[in-house]
Amino acid sequence: MLDLNALFAPRSIAVIGAGRERGSVGGEIFHNLLTHAFTGPVYPVNAKAKTVQSVRAYPSIKDVPDEVDLAVIVVPRDFVQGVVEDCGRKGVKALIVISAGFGETGGALQAKLLATVRKLGMRMVGPNCLGVLTTDPAVRMDASFAPTWPPQGRVSFSSQSGALGLAILDYAKELGIGVRNFVSVGNKADVSGNDLIEWWEADPETDVILLYLESFGNPQKFINLARRIAKEKPIVAVKSGRTAAGSRAASSHTGALAGEDSAVDALFAQTSVIRTDTIEELFDMSMLLANQPVPASNRLAIVTNAGGPGIMATDACESRGLVVTPLSEATMDKLRGFLPSEASVKNPVDMIVSASAESYGKAVRVLLEDPQVNSLLVIFVPPIITEAPAVAAAVREALATTPAAKEKTILACFLGTRGVPESLVTLQAGKVPSYAFPEAAAIALSRAVDYGKWKRLPEPVFPQFRVEKDRAAKAISGARDKAISSFWLDASGVREDG
Amino acid sequence: MLDLNALFAPRSIAVIGAGRERGSVGGEIFHNLLTHAFTGPVYPVNAKAKTVQSVRAYPSIKDVPDEVDLAVIVVPRDFVQGVVEDCGRKGVKALIVISAGFGETGGALQAKLLATVRKLGMRMVGPNCLGVLTTDPAVRMDASFAPTWPPQGRVSFSSQSGALGLAILDYAKELGIGVRNFVSVGNKADVSGNDLIEWWEADPETDVILLYLESFGNPQKFINLARRIAKEKPIVAVKSGRTAAGSRAASSHTGALAGEDSAVDALFAQTSVIRTDTIEELFDMSMLLANQPVPASNRLAIVTNAGGPGIMATDACESRGLVVTPLSEATMDKLRGFLPSEASVKNPVDMIVSASAESYGKAVRVLLEDPQVNSLLVIFVPPIITEAPAVAAAVREALATTPAAKEKTILACFLGTRGVPESLVTLQAGKVPSYAFPEAAAIALSRAVDYGKWKRLPEPVFPQFRVEKDRAAKAISGARDKAISSFWLDASGVREDG
Repeated sequence: MLDLNALFAPRSIAVIGAGRERGSVGGEIFHNLLTHAFTGPVYPVNAKAKTVQSVRAYPSIKDVPDEVDLAVIVVPRDFVQGVVEDCGRKGVKALIVISAGFGETGGALQAKLLATVRKLGMRMVGPNCLGVLTTDPAVRMDASFAPTWPPQGRVSFSSQSGALGLAILDYAKELGIGVRNFVSVGNKADVSGNDLIEWWEADPETDVILLYLESFGNPQKFINLARRIAKEKPIVAVKSGRTAAGSRAASSHTGALAGEDSAVDALFAQTSVIRTDTIEELFDMSMLLANQPVPASNRLAIVTNAGGPGIMATDACESRGLVVTPLSEATMDKLRGFLPSEASVKNPVDMIVSASAESYGKAVRVLLEDPQVNSLLVIFVPPIITEAPAVAAAVREALATTPAAKEKTILACFLGTRGVPESLVTLQAGKVPSYAFPEAAAIALSRAVDYGKWKRLPEPVFPQFRVEKDRAAKAISGARDKAISSFWLDASGVREDG
Repeated sequence: MLDLNALFAPRSIAVIGAGRERGSVGGEIFHNLLTHAFTGPVYPVNAKAKTVQSVRAYPSIKDVPDEVDLAVIVVPRDFVQGVVEDCGRKGVKALIVISAGFGETGGALQAKLLATVRKLGMRMVGPNCLGVLTTDPAVRMDASFAPTWPPQGRVSFSSQSGALGLAILDYAKELGIGVRNFVSVGNKADVSGNDLIEWWEADPETDVILLYLESFGNPQKFINLARRIAKEKPIVAVKSGRTAAGSRAASSHTGALAGEDSAVDALFAQTSVIRTDTIEELFDMSMLLANQPVPASNRLAIVTNAGGPGIMATDACESRGLVVTPLSEATMDKLRGFLPSEASVKNPVDMIVSASAESYGKAVRVLLEDPQVNSLLVIFVPPIITEAPAVAAAVREALATTPAAKEKTILACFLGTRGVPESLVTLQAGKVPSYAFPEAAAIALSRAVDYGKWKRLPEPVFPQFRVEKDRAAKAISGARDKAISSFWLDASGVREDG
């Protein structure tokens, strides 16, 4: 595993090409590092300016009087090679190269750059990237030009699209998805997606790994890593370039060869990576996994104050393999105890439009205590009397005071706009992921159920063969000229590893 | 066709069960009629109160001194029958029965009510509904307990779920979907979905018909109507109760028997009704159809300032049968004229992160003028310099000044949250539907393309047969006992109609 400490927890940073004022990329990155309060010193390097945004600047990295762990490089392409060589001589350990114009248009320049980076014992993110962000309070590094500082949390994210990364940090803030690390990988010349997932596997502060992929560098390594990691931490990925036209566009975008989609599907199928079809589903999934346990089974209860959305939710769940499970007589009796006779105490439980916040609290408690129920979807449409924030508060209170809630997976869908934004703040504080429509909740839940099923499978046991190594070696050497050797070598490798 | 004038354009309204204060259903409906400025008099009827919300009240409909076209009934179930009889004697022409407790729990009460309504020559919406709303400035009627008054427009909507209707009016306001009529049909005892679509077919102010369905009353009539109407006006429908569990829940919800989903699919396939899978897609479709022409072909251009979302959009479009069409050399030359060399002038056009609002304006104009391009998807991710509202303004300006824009279908996708809400206001004013994610735009566009293809098909011509009617009649009468007659009769019916 690569050592990425200098990247994610540097003690000092230089911004080479730091802009004198805000508005340029180099200006914004320097500003972000200061504004979001990086815990060590940040040195602006600018060939022409003595002061950058009120901080003493240095004409070159060589002139910085102290040690520098990480350099962020924002100079024009033709200066990058020289700057990187200077960084190596200075003893810089990690580089983030924002500058573009390498892999997208050729390769020779990037190959030379990579060789230099490796020779000088550094690690490099990029080139052609948006930067790196870590919310760890001991570091607090926004080495990116993203203006959004997401909430601190346990989701780490690697994006092969910088601009999408910008949007993603925005949504993370809005949806209450707590972020640990964000990396815009750019052309992935050195640090790859595989390096990052291996790093996050070992990181005790990362619980969920998100990936936006346009291409694979080493698919076989990805399969091996992902199989292993996903047993402990879910990996959620969206892979673009699925169609021929999309794939062509992806190739011209980051200069990487986009994989065939059928091969990508086969690849994901071997790993239990949770593949989503859209960016929106990537967020929907993250909200669930970042906040709730993986569901113990496919059986859920739905509680609603409106028949229509309850039916839509039931359809969406059942058509995706979830079971809107029959409730026990005891549960239905408890529900009858406080619901009017017009209500339906069968699952989906329709408390009808008159349901109060108090009814929501009681129903949530009763349903969570039914042992048949492993997940709970709470649907609410604000009618005239009951206010969304009051319902959100009652749900949160019920969860906090019901011991069974800890092992169950709870989701909410508050429809409409009146009072809903306010109620979402309460639900987020209670770690309840909330969806604008019931179908989105059903899709996220069903994917989490599938993942949970896979995670609970026992480890596959490979058969052990007794191999006569000498005879095998002879056979291989004899067969080599017949062009079947590579297959055979692979097979013998599997045997020896057990 | 039913005469629904008294329902949609009454000259006077009584609210029977008008609440003395706000907070009750009867109180809210009376308040809404006054607040949203119904253009005629609204008479509160309340057995116990002399004054309702500062307006002189009447103990019974019989005591109202003037003519009443429409009565909204919000009394407890057991009083409804008597109130309806009074309404008939008073000469009321149309009823909206909000009160519940009829079809959901039996049927005899509702059958008696319907017989009375018909005998007395009235029309009835409900029972068990949320109300009716019409934005026509000459009427301005919010006879519902929905607190949201949507923007005036050309979309008419029938919903079999009242609560969903509430949410839908909310979203219509937020998304800028202009509404003409909204009807919560409830148990559909008298006025049915079929009656409404026939009414809206003839209504020159309705361009798009939306339906939320849980069940069909008369499927054959729906097929005949929908086939005819969809040639002129698109009908967008979401049908719930698709799964067995959803269907059971639907039956207990409105007391209607939900149809088998395979039958429903077959039914929709015969009509070219645009069926969406989710509520969210219903809105996505409405935004497009309410604001833009139906696409003339499946060929579109995509313009973006961020590679990743451009690729996601390309994937989403191509996988749904849309063609991200090659651009002409002339178009690409024009794009090269103002874009930097790192930009991609191939479709999807990636103007890269440095693209200004001005570049967006120019690119929109150039792409719309390419005759190969029938639709245009504008994607924008707010980077540090270019502001979303400025881009929205440039797009709107380009559309307003490019004659070709009128025949083309334009959609936008502004990702992220910074400045995006402000920009949406500008785009809505320019009648550009905007989607939070590229995939949603692609789905809506592909459905509109399919609809357009169907709409442009020539009317089917049925072959004319010379029928020897006497011999046929004899054959039929002979075959009748052999139980094949019904098939034969159907076939001969087709022949005679030509």
